[in-house]
Amino acid sequence: MSEADDFLKVARAAREAAAELAPLPRAAKDVALRAIADALVSRAKEIIEANALDVAAARESGTPETMIDRLRLDEKRVEAVADAVREVADLPDPVGEVIRGSTLPNGLELRQIRVPLGVVGIIYEGRPNVTVDAAALCLKSGNAVLLRGSSSAYRSNTALVQIMQDALGDTEVPPGAVQLVPGTTRDSVKHLMRARGLVDVLIPRGGASLINSVVEESTVPVIETGVGNCHVYVDADADLDLALEILVNAKTQRPSVCNAAETFLVHAAVADAFVPAALARLAKEGVTVHGDERIASYGAGDVPAATEEDFGNEYLSLDIAAAVVESLEDAVAHIRRYGSAHTDAIVTRSQKAARRFVALVDSAAVAVNASTRFTDGGEFGFGAEIGISTQKLHARGPMGLPELTSTKWVYTGDGHLRTSTGTVIAGN
Amino acid sequence: MSEADDFLKVARAAREAAAELAPLPRAAKDVALRAIADALVSRAKEIIEANALDVAAARESGTPETMIDRLRLDEKRVEAVADAVREVADLPDPVGEVIRGSTLPNGLELRQIRVPLGVVGIIYEGRPNVTVDAAALCLKSGNAVLLRGSSSAYRSNTALVQIMQDALGDTEVPPGAVQLVPGTTRDSVKHLMRARGLVDVLIPRGGASLINSVVEESTVPVIETGVGNCHVYVDADADLDLALEILVNAKTQRPSVCNAAETFLVHAAVADAFVPAALARLAKEGVTVHGDERIASYGAGDVPAATEEDFGNEYLSLDIAAAVVESLEDAVAHIRRYGSAHTDAIVTRSQKAARRFVALVDSAAVAVNASTRFTDGGEFGFGAEIGISTQKLHARGPMGLPELTSTKWVYTGDGHLRTSTGTVIAGN
Repeated sequence: MSEADDFLKVARAAREAAAELAPLPRAAKDVALRAIADALVSRAKEIIEANALDVAAARESGTPETMIDRLRLDEKRVEAVADAVREVADLPDPVGEVIRGSTLPNGLELRQIRVPLGVVGIIYEGRPNVTVDAAALCLKSGNAVLLRGSSSAYRSNTALVQIMQDALGDTEVPPGAVQLVPGTTRDSVKHLMRARGLVDVLIPRGGASLINSVVEESTVPVIETGVGNCHVYVDADADLDLALEILVNAKTQRPSVCNAAETFLVHAAVADAFVPAALARLAKEGVTVHGDERIASYGAGDVPAATEEDFGNEYLSLDIAAAVVESLEDAVAHIRRYGSAHTDAIVTRSQKAARRFVALVDSAAVAVNASTRFTDGGEFGFGAEIGISTQKLHARGPMGLPELTSTKWVYTGDGHLRTSTGTVIAGN
Repeated sequence: MSEADDFLKVARAAREAAAELAPLPRAAKDVALRAIADALVSRAKEIIEANALDVAAARESGTPETMIDRLRLDEKRVEAVADAVREVADLPDPVGEVIRGSTLPNGLELRQIRVPLGVVGIIYEGRPNVTVDAAALCLKSGNAVLLRGSSSAYRSNTALVQIMQDALGDTEVPPGAVQLVPGTTRDSVKHLMRARGLVDVLIPRGGASLINSVVEESTVPVIETGVGNCHVYVDADADLDLALEILVNAKTQRPSVCNAAETFLVHAAVADAFVPAALARLAKEGVTVHGDERIASYGAGDVPAATEEDFGNEYLSLDIAAAVVESLEDAVAHIRRYGSAHTDAIVTRSQKAARRFVALVDSAAVAVNASTRFTDGGEFGFGAEIGISTQKLHARGPMGLPELTSTKWVYTGDGHLRTSTGTVIAGN
């Protein structure tokens, strides 16, 4: 059988499983999730053995040790993965929630109810724990899942998916609801991206190049996630000590994640007071500032010039671009031009400036006097997160379980008929 | 200038206008909508003159009179269009609505707020009143709109858009927020479908072939609308008189619309009692039934055989496909296989059957003991409708003003910083 046939087989199996899974009540799904968690722990040895082969292959091909550490699974990490599944089981079930409801003037009872999306495809890089996290979130929200992880983790993912499917065998959730996309070639991704009708939504998780290629090539609807060129704007009315702490936290607390700051903008009125202190502190924290001319003028020659590329860049490192702006409106224009509409922060004591910044900045999240690092499903209280959407359709910002659902309208009558003059009840 | 350049010019103007329009309060938008309504009435003569040229050209090219009637505008129709704009002005503004909000355990104030999508592209056929309806709904929800109507209505649409832009000239809403896609060629649609980054969402309104081609070719996110292969399932426990009235209403009350029934399914246990009466009544109503063998067996030779194509077809005419099924589950399987996931109805007295049908049928709307004709933004109390989505992402079923919005997360703190052990407030 060709890889394309293999893919169709698993995609159709997922489709069928999705139909069985969708109407299951919460209790059945939670039992299944706990069975998965137990199986992962009891079969940890198999997982670690498969993972060791991935690790050895990665090492042989010269993968850097930091990457290998992300790939590596040990008993403790498998236990953490299982615990995360149990936490998902403890979360409320979004399916069946009545979002809107009313009795219409004609007596029809109308309800809008959350239902699963169906089959969710996830394309991701790096760590094999995502395989289990993503599967757990999809199952909890009543969706079947097609997983396409990094080829470097293929043996680990194969073992994890096999164990999950086996665990589901003794539950009401059909084992076919969790599927690994077969194969490690570029084509195996393509099959997933072209499976319109079999896959309801595709969520790429990873770097900008992965996400852009999926957006370009997919005929399945995509939810873009995760690229964050986040800004901190220091307003003319900012508490400058606060601004510096927020800037340093947003840049350095965890530079490799999408909600870290990548640019700061300073109102000209406070540039003299803020920029020298900021440059000194950021240097102390190991951060390289790439500044425009005015930022550089405070820097005694140690500020590399920011190019257009710097302003558009998601460094994910201890680098930050910086510019002085003439006004809040200029800051907003800069953010609109270069930003990725993930999270942008203003630091200000002015209520008016805060309101205006919030109104004008068109991003998934806008922070006022807070670090950009709080844009996160966990921090928002969602309990779990499948990614952070930077698009406007369907979901925007951190995506929890409700964002993995659609809705269905249900209306119930007594023989309600529509006529040109209004509703008639049959038999009355 | 080429057509592509012309398109880019209007798309960029819409993009800029969208940024200005988004933060405007309701009052400013309502004033603008009323100015549009007034201008349409006071300049009705220009509209009717431009429309007369479209009508003459359509007649010359042999367009059927029913189509010409749809195209034609007179003073009364222009007034009705203006009244519809005033009704949109009277609707509540979805923008700014706080959908979720809480104070997080760390004291951050978190709000999820409705914001406009940005630039909405609409591709539609036929009637020029859609030009104004769609523009009004987009403006009310804070969106700029790029309109691509039928080439047969190009002169009418040009006049309507010019009048709307002129009317906006005296208001806070930038005139650039309403734009007609220049040109009448197939390429002009392509420009719109490829304008990712300039256009936030594309809504095709029209027949299946239009919608399919947009879904296939567009790199801009699409909301599919309007194809309705709706089913009426007559359960074993149905009140058969009620079932017949619902079936006749769903099929005949307005056969040309997407929520009309296109197939009926009858449980084998009531086929003897229901089918002969249904065939007689439908014949009397002028409906041709395309039946499977068992339906045909009641028909004395006057029931054409239903093919696979019949079951998959949206007739939009006085035709209906029909089959006998062995069980509710078979009815659901039939609907899943052939349906378009628009609206499907069950007629039953059994609470259990109703619950099961609602749970298993994965459609935008499920009706219980009611005609499928009620799946409609007006009937649901939305006040207006931009279309009926048959997809699962973003919006499903009738789309009103809230479905033309996205959301933005706003969080406000006092210098909130994220650390590995929890939140720290700067300066405390």
